[in-house]
Amino acid sequence: MTGNVLVGQSGGPTAVINSSLAGVFKTAKDLGAGKVYGMLYGIQGLLDEKYIDLGEKLHSELEIELLKRTPSSYLGSCRYKLPDYDSQPEIYETLFNTFNKLNIQYFFYIGGNDSMDTIKKLSDYGTAHQSEIRFIGVPKTIDNDLEITDHTPGYGSAAKFIGATTKEIIRDSLVYDQKNVTIIEIMGRNVGWLTGAAALSEGVDCGGPDLIYLPETDFSMEDFLERTARLQAHKKSLVIAISEGIHLKDGRYVCELTEDRKYVDGFGHTMLNGAANILAQRAAREIGCKTRAIELNTLQRCASHMASLVDIKEAFLAGAAGVRAADEGKSGEMIILKRTSGDSKACKSIYECSTDTFDIHKIANMEKKVPLEWIDLTNNKVTKDFVDYARPLIGDELSPIMVEGLPRHIEYVI
Amino acid sequence: MTGNVLVGQSGGPTAVINSSLAGVFKTAKDLGAGKVYGMLYGIQGLLDEKYIDLGEKLHSELEIELLKRTPSSYLGSCRYKLPDYDSQPEIYETLFNTFNKLNIQYFFYIGGNDSMDTIKKLSDYGTAHQSEIRFIGVPKTIDNDLEITDHTPGYGSAAKFIGATTKEIIRDSLVYDQKNVTIIEIMGRNVGWLTGAAALSEGVDCGGPDLIYLPETDFSMEDFLERTARLQAHKKSLVIAISEGIHLKDGRYVCELTEDRKYVDGFGHTMLNGAANILAQRAAREIGCKTRAIELNTLQRCASHMASLVDIKEAFLAGAAGVRAADEGKSGEMIILKRTSGDSKACKSIYECSTDTFDIHKIANMEKKVPLEWIDLTNNKVTKDFVDYARPLIGDELSPIMVEGLPRHIEYVI
Repeated sequence: MTGNVLVGQSGGPTAVINSSLAGVFKTAKDLGAGKVYGMLYGIQGLLDEKYIDLGEKLHSELEIELLKRTPSSYLGSCRYKLPDYDSQPEIYETLFNTFNKLNIQYFFYIGGNDSMDTIKKLSDYGTAHQSEIRFIGVPKTIDNDLEITDHTPGYGSAAKFIGATTKEIIRDSLVYDQKNVTIIEIMGRNVGWLTGAAALSEGVDCGGPDLIYLPETDFSMEDFLERTARLQAHKKSLVIAISEGIHLKDGRYVCELTEDRKYVDGFGHTMLNGAANILAQRAAREIGCKTRAIELNTLQRCASHMASLVDIKEAFLAGAAGVRAADEGKSGEMIILKRTSGDSKACKSIYECSTDTFDIHKIANMEKKVPLEWIDLTNNKVTKDFVDYARPLIGDELSPIMVEGLPRHIEYVI
Repeated sequence: MTGNVLVGQSGGPTAVINSSLAGVFKTAKDLGAGKVYGMLYGIQGLLDEKYIDLGEKLHSELEIELLKRTPSSYLGSCRYKLPDYDSQPEIYETLFNTFNKLNIQYFFYIGGNDSMDTIKKLSDYGTAHQSEIRFIGVPKTIDNDLEITDHTPGYGSAAKFIGATTKEIIRDSLVYDQKNVTIIEIMGRNVGWLTGAAALSEGVDCGGPDLIYLPETDFSMEDFLERTARLQAHKKSLVIAISEGIHLKDGRYVCELTEDRKYVDGFGHTMLNGAANILAQRAAREIGCKTRAIELNTLQRCASHMASLVDIKEAFLAGAAGVRAADEGKSGEMIILKRTSGDSKACKSIYECSTDTFDIHKIANMEKKVPLEWIDLTNNKVTKDFVDYARPLIGDELSPIMVEGLPRHIEYVI
């Protein structure tokens, strides 16, 4: 590689997004790149000329290891949708001026759908203006909703935390000899990959959730209450996993249902209370049992103490593969993960995965939902195919570097 | 030991209460006890003749190891306050008939304040009726509110989870370049030991919570809003740890403040929304920034995947010491933990702890609060003395036995 590298992180953080950053940094340095700059707070920060020289921050292999184990986005992030060139050409000019000023030859953006849209637009602009800069997207999202790639770095660790936590919550809920219903609210407004991961808790030592509600299908309050009451006739303690985005047939989100639980923030935005709270309230009133709502909240995306080693390694590999692809001359592509162990059900315990590249135009702005055939509508659960798909992604652990009883992270740069 | 043993678990579960059960079982067997019976759902279940022979369930050292790593109460639990003898003598007769039927010589109850009251009452009744049964209390509570003992098994693991999670939440909250306030709600209605543990997150790699509110002092909404606004003038992202039990000077809990957020369950009980939600709502309205409320909920008491090895060992030792004390003829006593490394500040990294026994009459029904001199009212934090006290208790880890990507627990008996 010749010239300098610019890398940024965008969208919601994950437990392993920094492992992809480590993969980009280390591989670029190994391949002889000049400076590796990190934009602070993504492309939005770059527009304000916020960036650092990563080589000045990451001095040792120990720091790389700490980076891989540090949750959230080391460089900060943004939720910024790059406007179309036609509407605001000056933004593109500003960005490319910065690229030229820093002698950037390689641009990597670690993120989800919106971030891939950024890569697409910058790459298209670059091509149209004879830029030699290569633009590569590195996938990241706990939601696992990117198309083409078998799965997305970040998903496995969130799924592992959800599986482990669901198992612990189920144990906890059994403790008293009385009827109770616990509703666990899990992220994923439009797709149920994370909510389905609650099913990973099921095994010889755990019954798993009694019901699972994904946002891919419509939610019926009557059916929910009827099923819950019916199950509770035979089993005192029920645990139900729901997506934050479950919605009625008419499109209204469950979290919007109770008028008196909305409130308005300082910007006049309506803030919604959680769907789990609404369901716990309805079940308490109508079934007449103790209920509890548990929102896993941001813990599910930042619990690096419970990260999947498979995920950490794949996140690193995705970053490394991005650099190699750019070095080989590719641009306007996203790194994808390919499950090479495929459908070899003869030996399902073997999991193998490799990287490839794919045209960003066919990925950006799309959303991969859980296939309907993986949703068991009869029992409101997910099928064995779902579990077989997700299980290898939560495999193995990378022990945190524990100092004074807590996981040590890398020091802040933001 | 001659004769049989009866052991029960009571009150809220912890990540390590089963380690105490393992300590009782293994030590009793080692000392030659006959059968070791476990009451199911505590003394309340025993009144319905619910019990098992633990020797039929725990066959191997592997099962003991799984038990030590399994959260929640293996035998189930109850929240049952034994009535006074004068009001319901028949309950005592029923229990002692069961003890005699099972040839019980040793009775162990693993629990908190209410459970120690049970030991006290049974022991007093036994003494008055010339029973030879020995009654010993084994301390357990995440709240750390038992008197005399330096700390309580269960606290260290909850504190470790709170410290690690607070650290991850703080990282996560920094990610966007915009003003935001995150309120973390932590258990402990009357005592702030758990909430103070959020301060353990502070170190070279983490700024720690910006404000900490314990229930030992009165909460002022005006002061909270003023401090938060003032801090945010210099720091965009604030994380504030609060106890679920913070209350105004007039005694009202913060979680009771907003009339329209109460609802009534099927039994006519008012269910309270969390204090964190109330504060997040007020801060959003009056400071005008993005806010988020995170309730750690039952995760803080059941997250055995993040248990403290110090805590697991001490929980086991407390159970073992209970059996040894009973074998030596003691009764009407609770096991206490004594920090033998004491105040030797010359070498604070050395932590040593041993067990002793103490008269149950001087412990039951009391509540140990955080000393006021460990609360930094000027900055709304806890002092270094608090951190020095709590830090050794979260020390080291016992790796979960991971199977297919998740911690394996022992199989259910309830």
